[in-house]
Amino acid sequence: MAYELYYWDGLQGRGEFVRLALEEAQADYVDVARGEKSAGLGIGAMISELDSRSGAYPPFAPPFLKDGDLLIPQTANILFYLGPKLSLAPRDEGLRYVANGLQMTIVDLVAEVHDTHHPIASGLYYEDQKHEAKARAADFLAHRMPKFLGYFERVLAQNPSGAQHMVGDALTYVDLSIFQIVEGLRYAFPKATNHLAERYPHVCALHDAVAVRPNIAAYLASPRRLPFNETGIFRHYPELDHATR
Amino acid sequence: MAYELYYWDGLQGRGEFVRLALEEAQADYVDVARGEKSAGLGIGAMISELDSRSGAYPPFAPPFLKDGDLLIPQTANILFYLGPKLSLAPRDEGLRYVANGLQMTIVDLVAEVHDTHHPIASGLYYEDQKHEAKARAADFLAHRMPKFLGYFERVLAQNPSGAQHMVGDALTYVDLSIFQIVEGLRYAFPKATNHLAERYPHVCALHDAVAVRPNIAAYLASPRRLPFNETGIFRHYPELDHATR
Repeated sequence: MAYELYYWDGLQGRGEFVRLALEEAQADYVDVARGEKSAGLGIGAMISELDSRSGAYPPFAPPFLKDGDLLIPQTANILFYLGPKLSLAPRDEGLRYVANGLQMTIVDLVAEVHDTHHPIASGLYYEDQKHEAKARAADFLAHRMPKFLGYFERVLAQNPSGAQHMVGDALTYVDLSIFQIVEGLRYAFPKATNHLAERYPHVCALHDAVAVRPNIAAYLASPRRLPFNETGIFRHYPELDHATR
Repeated sequence: MAYELYYWDGLQGRGEFVRLALEEAQADYVDVARGEKSAGLGIGAMISELDSRSGAYPPFAPPFLKDGDLLIPQTANILFYLGPKLSLAPRDEGLRYVANGLQMTIVDLVAEVHDTHHPIASGLYYEDQKHEAKARAADFLAHRMPKFLGYFERVLAQNPSGAQHMVGDALTYVDLSIFQIVEGLRYAFPKATNHLAERYPHVCALHDAVAVRPNIAAYLASPRRLPFNETGIFRHYPELDHATR
């Protein structure tokens, strides 16, 4: 039976980290909210899961995954669940917790990227918190982005199996997520990421290696890959972007 | 061999969610950063793990746990790992992912609580972002806290095994974390949480049931339980707290 991925239509957002894993593995999946209402899909099908007043363990927010009767919420949790099934997790049990910890750190970074444009309230428009967004984005580019990327660079450099992968000696979902982080940061902050390859060579080499994997390249060229836009997590607001030292 | 918990000394913070699980299970553990330097413990021992320029898979930030050779970072990941070993996870495999998803949602709430006092930059003092903190805290109390607590209330009400536990029919680490959330929110926002028991009866009943468990009660009365203070996640700044509708 096909996996059912539930995430907002029209943006990459947090759902994209799951899509990349499903696409790399050529898994059979339905992107529920992007489907046709006549087929029982669409946003309504997702909202009814979120709003269920009777179902056991309803999800707090998208993305969530359904695999038969099991409903799994939270990006890193979905990937932890799918990883072994899609052959995108380390074979070693201990390293699976390492991968999970790295993915949760990526999730933390994604939340901080979101808050560069919504530092005060996720329910208000960007325009209503633009002043504060400038301050938060400046701090993000000066301190937080280098801290996270420097950390990922160090994890790659110190991987006992080599700097080609974040964990172990083979591709995992964490590598795919690093690709997405680099893509997203470059879209949102072209000036601040201008020297990314120079400063974080292993991170950027991993990004480039993922981009040319046949299944990923085919996905990126397909209509299934939504373009980045200003309703997602990574938003390009020129006033928030500037070159960093 | 004892588990080694690494977290900042002097504050409950994110480490407390792990401490509560270890204490409930009466597990053998060392709170490394709070130990004596002469015993090879203390903050220095933690910093050297964080700053390692040779170790495989260094952690990004505390808390992290060492179990023999395995180093496990990220609060929810540590609890996912420890849960089955401490008999604080559901026996059912599928429900373990449910528990993990709920714990990650608690982690998200904790990050939002942190940002009520640090909405612009975690590296700056509260006093330097007080104005923005007032705006973010007001939004948190009006929208985000009710959204999270209403969700947890719904999960309890809709638990097929009864409203005594977040997942399944027995105590899990998720229940312990809900206790800590209620404790923390009441400390930080006494006015805004004045009507908590009325609005979220299942959540508060769970909090009360955890508080009187013998191992938890003994821990709370011990010097191992640090008091809440204004260096942790849950901080009481009276100017950020106000009664809500």
